[in-house]
Amino acid sequence: MINLGNFLTLSTFGESHGTAYGGVITNFPAGLKPDFQEIQRQLDRRRPGQSTIVTQRKENDSVKFLSGVFNGTTTGTPIGFIIENENQKSQDYDHLANVYRPSHADFTYDRKFGIRDYRGGGKSSARETVNWVVAGSLARQILPSDVQIQAYVSSVGEIFCEKPYQDLDLSKTDDNDVRCPDPATAERMITRIKEIKKEGNTIGGTITCVIKNLPAGVGEPVFGKLQAELAKAMLNINAAKGFEYGSGFCGARMTGMDHNDLFNEDFTTKSNLSGGIQGGISNGMDIYFRVAFKPVATVLRDQQSVNSSGSTVTVAGKGRHDACVLPRAVPVVENLAAFVLADLFLINKLRKFNNQQSENNRI
Amino acid sequence: MINLGNFLTLSTFGESHGTAYGGVITNFPAGLKPDFQEIQRQLDRRRPGQSTIVTQRKENDSVKFLSGVFNGTTTGTPIGFIIENENQKSQDYDHLANVYRPSHADFTYDRKFGIRDYRGGGKSSARETVNWVVAGSLARQILPSDVQIQAYVSSVGEIFCEKPYQDLDLSKTDDNDVRCPDPATAERMITRIKEIKKEGNTIGGTITCVIKNLPAGVGEPVFGKLQAELAKAMLNINAAKGFEYGSGFCGARMTGMDHNDLFNEDFTTKSNLSGGIQGGISNGMDIYFRVAFKPVATVLRDQQSVNSSGSTVTVAGKGRHDACVLPRAVPVVENLAAFVLADLFLINKLRKFNNQQSENNRI
Amino acid sequence: MINLGNFLTLSTFGESHGTAYGGVITNFPAGLKPDFQEIQRQLDRRRPGQSTIVTQRKENDSVKFLSGVFNGTTTGTPIGFIIENENQKSQDYDHLANVYRPSHADFTYDRKFGIRDYRGGGKSSARETVNWVVAGSLARQILPSDVQIQAYVSSVGEIFCEKPYQDLDLSKTDDNDVRCPDPATAERMITRIKEIKKEGNTIGGTITCVIKNLPAGVGEPVFGKLQAELAKAMLNINAAKGFEYGSGFCGARMTGMDHNDLFNEDFTTKSNLSGGIQGGISNGMDIYFRVAFKPVATVLRDQQSVNSSGSTVTVAGKGRHDACVLPRAVPVVENLAAFVLADLFLINKLRKFNNQQSENNRI
Amino acid sequence: MINLGNFLTLSTFGESHGTAYGGVITNFPAGLKPDFQEIQRQLDRRRPGQSTIVTQRKENDSVKFLSGVFNGTTTGTPIGFIIENENQKSQDYDHLANVYRPSHADFTYDRKFGIRDYRGGGKSSARETVNWVVAGSLARQILPSDVQIQAYVSSVGEIFCEKPYQDLDLSKTDDNDVRCPDPATAERMITRIKEIKKEGNTIGGTITCVIKNLPAGVGEPVFGKLQAELAKAMLNINAAKGFEYGSGFCGARMTGMDHNDLFNEDFTTKSNLSGGIQGGISNGMDIYFRVAFKPVATVLRDQQSVNSSGSTVTVAGKGRHDACVLPRAVPVVENLAAFVLADLFLINKLRKFNNQQSENNRI
Repeated sequence: MINLGNFLTLSTFGESHGTAYGGVITNFPAGLKPDFQEIQRQLDRRRPGQSTIVTQRKENDSVKFLSGVFNGTTTGTPIGFIIENENQKSQDYDHLANVYRPSHADFTYDRKFGIRDYRGGGKSSARETVNWVVAGSLARQILPSDVQIQAYVSSVGEIFCEKPYQDLDLSKTDDNDVRCPDPATAERMITRIKEIKKEGNTIGGTITCVIKNLPAGVGEPVFGKLQAELAKAMLNINAAKGFEYGSGFCGARMTGMDHNDLFNEDFTTKSNLSGGIQGGISNGMDIYFRVAFKPVATVLRDQQSVNSSGSTVTVAGKGRHDACVLPRAVPVVENLAAFVLADLFLINKLRKFNNQQSENNRI
Repeated sequence: MINLGNFLTLSTFGESHGTAYGGVITNFPAGLKPDFQEIQRQLDRRRPGQSTIVTQRKENDSVKFLSGVFNGTTTGTPIGFIIENENQKSQDYDHLANVYRPSHADFTYDRKFGIRDYRGGGKSSARETVNWVVAGSLARQILPSDVQIQAYVSSVGEIFCEKPYQDLDLSKTDDNDVRCPDPATAERMITRIKEIKKEGNTIGGTITCVIKNLPAGVGEPVFGKLQAELAKAMLNINAAKGFEYGSGFCGARMTGMDHNDLFNEDFTTKSNLSGGIQGGISNGMDIYFRVAFKPVATVLRDQQSVNSSGSTVTVAGKGRHDACVLPRAVPVVENLAAFVLADLFLINKLRKFNNQQSENNRI
Repeated sequence: MINLGNFLTLSTFGESHGTAYGGVITNFPAGLKPDFQEIQRQLDRRRPGQSTIVTQRKENDSVKFLSGVFNGTTTGTPIGFIIENENQKSQDYDHLANVYRPSHADFTYDRKFGIRDYRGGGKSSARETVNWVVAGSLARQILPSDVQIQAYVSSVGEIFCEKPYQDLDLSKTDDNDVRCPDPATAERMITRIKEIKKEGNTIGGTITCVIKNLPAGVGEPVFGKLQAELAKAMLNINAAKGFEYGSGFCGARMTGMDHNDLFNEDFTTKSNLSGGIQGGISNGMDIYFRVAFKPVATVLRDQQSVNSSGSTVTVAGKGRHDACVLPRAVPVVENLAAFVLADLFLINKLRKFNNQQSENNRI
Repeated sequence: MINLGNFLTLSTFGESHGTAYGGVITNFPAGLKPDFQEIQRQLDRRRPGQSTIVTQRKENDSVKFLSGVFNGTTTGTPIGFIIENENQKSQDYDHLANVYRPSHADFTYDRKFGIRDYRGGGKSSARETVNWVVAGSLARQILPSDVQIQAYVSSVGEIFCEKPYQDLDLSKTDDNDVRCPDPATAERMITRIKEIKKEGNTIGGTITCVIKNLPAGVGEPVFGKLQAELAKAMLNINAAKGFEYGSGFCGARMTGMDHNDLFNEDFTTKSNLSGGIQGGISNGMDIYFRVAFKPVATVLRDQQSVNSSGSTVTVAGKGRHDACVLPRAVPVVENLAAFVLADLFLINKLRKFNNQQSENNRI
């Protein structure tokens, strides 16, 4: 149970059917007036029940800040927050107490800890990401106001958004339920998800995230390279199976003469296969990366599995689950990226000696 | 400049044309008798000049341990080590003092730090990975002796090793210069690299890494999930552009019914699209992941670029460089993975209360 | 805002007149059945209003655990907890919004953060220690059951408990209101505190803490020596001004021939001026240390001070404050020490290679 | 084996009779031109053989910087350094292989690690502090140039420097061999040390350290209070037994009316019993603290002890040892304090939101 962040840190807690989720953000700078409505708006983007293609569970996901803010301004002291769990139907899960569901974390938690809270997946539930949206959407407000972090669903199953992000209007991402900014592709994705849902099945996909206007200099080689910190954060998201940035896996097929990004005289680059990061440090160009998500493991059909005694049992998913987690994962990717960027952005402020002398706190 | 590891940690130092590379490993357990020959063997696998398809620079890469070992046994105190730089031709780089090479870290280091050691890329040189091979091959010896960590080159440019890892004899990886265990594919890869080299060009590829016999329970959700720690480590390798594990990006195209790994009654799984990790914790099945590497940025042909004043200049790569970094990256991937595993393996020992009571240090 | 602990960590939040205090404990081992009554009992020892010589504020200090415990057993996942604030009379503090009270943190918080929550001292309030008692009394349960951690008031102002701890019955500490196990001295201390209180003044003192039966081997030289970690923890307590262990400042007057602790053949030592720690590691003998506390800064008499504009103002303390903080600091010292010990105790389990191989998690 | 520092960190290695000492400093800011002569000068102040009252061992203690500096300027990358051991007479120690010397760390290292390097105390040797002087004297150069950190010997055994630091000329500290700035007291101390040395005995003492002109705002409550970080650092010094700052243990005898530091209208305080720190944050007044050192455990006379089998043996110290470690500890205290201050000084730069926006790294 390791924290998120290197200087700006987040410690979280909470299980699916426990009392509450929440966390503590430390080293948040004093003097910022958080836009709390924006934080709630980001939570609403992640919330169940917001459209017909996501789970119909009802959770208000309303966050309460318990400390670190006074008269609407951050005080520099730790920010505690809490999201109370509601609408818990824990008894729905009693039949799972001794069952290991396929491709869930039931077996591994049991092996690791010798005990697990089996209600709704306990700690392994993706509901944990509610904490990340709170912390990330707050951390985002540390970044310069023109930094844009925009994620969208770039594929669902075999349906890909073929246009590169440059040809999309990313401000339109939330205009449809699946959060793909290309209306025609979105339509096909939605249709596909509805089919899959009707079958009691689930489906995977990818999310692309684009970061614009981040200043050059952000990222801490050797072990805190910008892409490495992003990769770590993204691979901590439940169901994430892969991460690539810039040219990614395609870049592995290329030659150096084709891949190198030549400079313009204003230090921008003619191409951007580097994905805005060189040597682990942002270069001022757009940063873009892609995250792969496997299909949700909970299907509403019978599957053969085993219980903790090693006997074969039949598991039938029931309850209200997502057939495709991608639309709700968009704000998770965005805000988690924001937390990583804010952390490294702050650290970067200390990396030149001259900067430090500029401010004088003397009495 | 953040460290590697959460409990077992590595701090490194060194620049391409500085005096030496080296590092400090803390929290290494006492009482282990390191196989130093094995460490040197791993360094030799990474060393330049070991075959005709890699750079012909001569570096002995001989490591000296300066502390933490007494009479051939680790003492539990920090292990300092050093690899002295040799064969430096720093004057080769004077023409680069004010030049920003395409897709290198020259520009970003300058922006971030206001100064850079331009000789051989300074800190951004991949020579840093020599430290990781030392630390990783030592950490590997903490793991149970039957844990196998085997990486190999799974693609070079458009040439892919089509066989899945299960159909390969991974003990044959080092039998050829490119480190692909499929002899026919290896042949084609070698031919391709020689062509590319003759052209003064470079080429990318992928490395697959397979970990067998890791006990179940390794990995620290929420923020230290096994795949997340591996992804972070891998994306810190110079030239890495992507990471996927288990079904990876392919998994994003699948449905839940196809993707779920059903259990056998002995808790193994019938399929292993999970890649040996569920909920961020190892489940005892094989772990496998793939890392994408872009082509090396240094080409031996003229490229247009800019200098630090923003004027156009022509950069002509010279010196002894790798046309394809993949064969030498194989031991880097393996040993870096080993470090991550050893760190999480140790932490896992503390996660059950009963374990802790078993040992009694009383006088 | 740095966390407590190196492996077992505590992140806290909360301000005196905010909504709640609380925290997150990470890496707490799974499988322990916490004695929650004991935790509440420790909170009650710290609580205001428990006797006539401490502040008469009413705070129930009732802790709610929000996660990390299932069916009465820890699950290994982060333990979130909260203590809601009650009985807040925030308007009592409006007159202090722009005033810097002498020897308080008003001025320094303002300089550091540019803003402060002036209600009841905000973050600088000693109410923060309520979090430490919760986390410490829980962490204490990780330690072997025969480890005893016993603190007591060893001086109030000029009144010293002259007997060494060996001559005291430390189980009697809570038998009187001042928590000094020597009844006669306790009587004098109580009388002195009542006098001081009547004068509207306050008084300092010292707390001695004794740890028995801690196994040898706990402590992490070089930078995590047992005494250093204890010193850091203790000096973080509000009003603490000094720390000494074993012979302490008296030891500085001695010669080596007098100070050295000679061994018996069972590895106990004839004397224990080392205070149970040699080279930063516990040696199995009693650990004992002493913490100095300055008098509480809030006096109920007029004092001259300044406001944030630098103009002279008169400050008159009002409200319900401790004339002597020592009795309530006893459980803080004990439980904070417990947290430090539990953290280092766990880490020590990983420091020998053989131990680690003893447990096998294989499927 | 935990690192020093929270943002600016130091990892060290080395044993008394190993190959070398050294360390890695991470997050050191780029663009500083270190005064290397000053670093060597501080090492010379700590070096054995510098006067007749300290050990006559010959060690040049010459530091080599291996990385992180280019053309005389720090590059922001990790700074590796090494101090090679010389003049090792390891065979002097063979008789101690199985012997536990009184009040040394022989027994505890053996219990903790199951192995120890018995030559010269191995890792437990105070020679480790050579690393701290290097790192601290470099970190000191980050601080504003008018910050003064001045330590001196304030007592040797029963001989105290009675004058408060304000009445001493701290620039005279190095004018005599014992490093007490009061010439008459220094004379008495030197005489006492010579007597003790002649007897083959050793003696303890205290060091006072004064820090002037540190800006207000340095220190990170709750768990990184300035005094707590200083206490931790100081208690990690070999032989340190206590720490107090400001009024310290004397403050525990006082009343609030006497102890409170009243403000002047320029925010200085009339008295400074707070010792320049309020609420864990510097207030711009002088910081002063005192560290107690026990007498060196190695006496040159016969002592009864035990071996690792628990049999009684006679230990006779031989070799060249300090009769009083205080004069050589003065630069250790100063430079270790400097490291702590530099770390917290840097962190403080990030604690106000407005500061962070002032610098713009955009291309």
